[in-house]
Amino acid sequence: MYSQIKAYLSRFIHLTEEEFEAFAGKLVAKKLKKKEVYFLEGEISRQVAFINKGCLRYYYLVNGEEHTGQFFFENSFYTDYESFLSGQPSRQNIDALEKTELLLLSRTDLYQFYETNPKFERFGRLMAENAYLGLRKRNNELLNLNPEERYVQLLRERPKVMERIPQHYIASYLGIKPESLSRIRKRIARQNAD
Amino acid sequence: MYSQIKAYLSRFIHLTEEEFEAFAGKLVAKKLKKKEVYFLEGEISRQVAFINKGCLRYYYLVNGEEHTGQFFFENSFYTDYESFLSGQPSRQNIDALEKTELLLLSRTDLYQFYETNPKFERFGRLMAENAYLGLRKRNNELLNLNPEERYVQLLRERPKVMERIPQHYIASYLGIKPESLSRIRKRIARQNAD
Repeated sequence: MYSQIKAYLSRFIHLTEEEFEAFAGKLVAKKLKKKEVYFLEGEISRQVAFINKGCLRYYYLVNGEEHTGQFFFENSFYTDYESFLSGQPSRQNIDALEKTELLLLSRTDLYQFYETNPKFERFGRLMAENAYLGLRKRNNELLNLNPEERYVQLLRERPKVMERIPQHYIASYLGIKPESLSRIRKRIARQNAD
Repeated sequence: MYSQIKAYLSRFIHLTEEEFEAFAGKLVAKKLKKKEVYFLEGEISRQVAFINKGCLRYYYLVNGEEHTGQFFFENSFYTDYESFLSGQPSRQNIDALEKTELLLLSRTDLYQFYETNPKFERFGRLMAENAYLGLRKRNNELLNLNPEERYVQLLRERPKVMERIPQHYIASYLGIKPESLSRIRKRIARQNAD
């Protein structure tokens, strides 16, 4: 159950067996069915979730419409980091797009690790830096690329999204209607056939 | 010269005199005249700048037009954190809107402090978290508030911007034309007079 999160951590910090055991001892397993809700806007994010298996998606509700923010797959962490850091209610809604298995770590336990072991401070710094870079990247895409360019970039950089995520969620992620995504896909298929 | 940055650091971590001396020993002072350029897009951000005095602004050039991203005043840090972390060229242009005094710390020296003293890891984590929260806040304002609401929020939360920044930069920051800002200001002045 812990082999994936152990491998993930080892990319950033080198824990002894005892240190990892102490960390793993605080993790709580949670399973979600396909389409099950993990978290709703208005709640305060008090946990980080490591995805052992499956896929989470978060979205904002804007005038009753779902605006998909991001997809997260196995071997990555998800939290609404803004709510987690600020203690303010989240605006995000998160559901599982596949049968999903999570390992949860509470904010309290994470901050306890920060206090007691500098290796976790480093891990926290690197996670915060990654979150910042991810947000800047998403901003840049939405600001500087048109929907077709965003789609091409997604094709190139994130094959998992293309393989595992239904088209209407991809359209929502790209900020377009499903019909527009169909047109873009046809146009690109024609270009590749030429 | 170091009293402000010392006070700033002490809000996050508690350094001994020796630790602070070692840190201060790596800082390089830099003065900018009003309107002087600090940094241009295409360069790689290899320093963090603590502002001892004055004000920096960064902007993006979009079709020859300046889109103001943010203002930074004395007692805060500025860097293009994306470029700083990724080593990729920056898209930001930074100039001084007032006579400005900076203390610069190189990326190499900062990472050396991360390596050798866990207190700096904590400082780095807190800075990265703040950068993330600042970016989310700015995103939320641009996504969820109309220009008048953004202006009212700026009035309430950041009096320094209202007092020290010329109107056309404020308009650019709010994402509107200077004429629109004039109209908003008149409308609010009328409401307050009622």
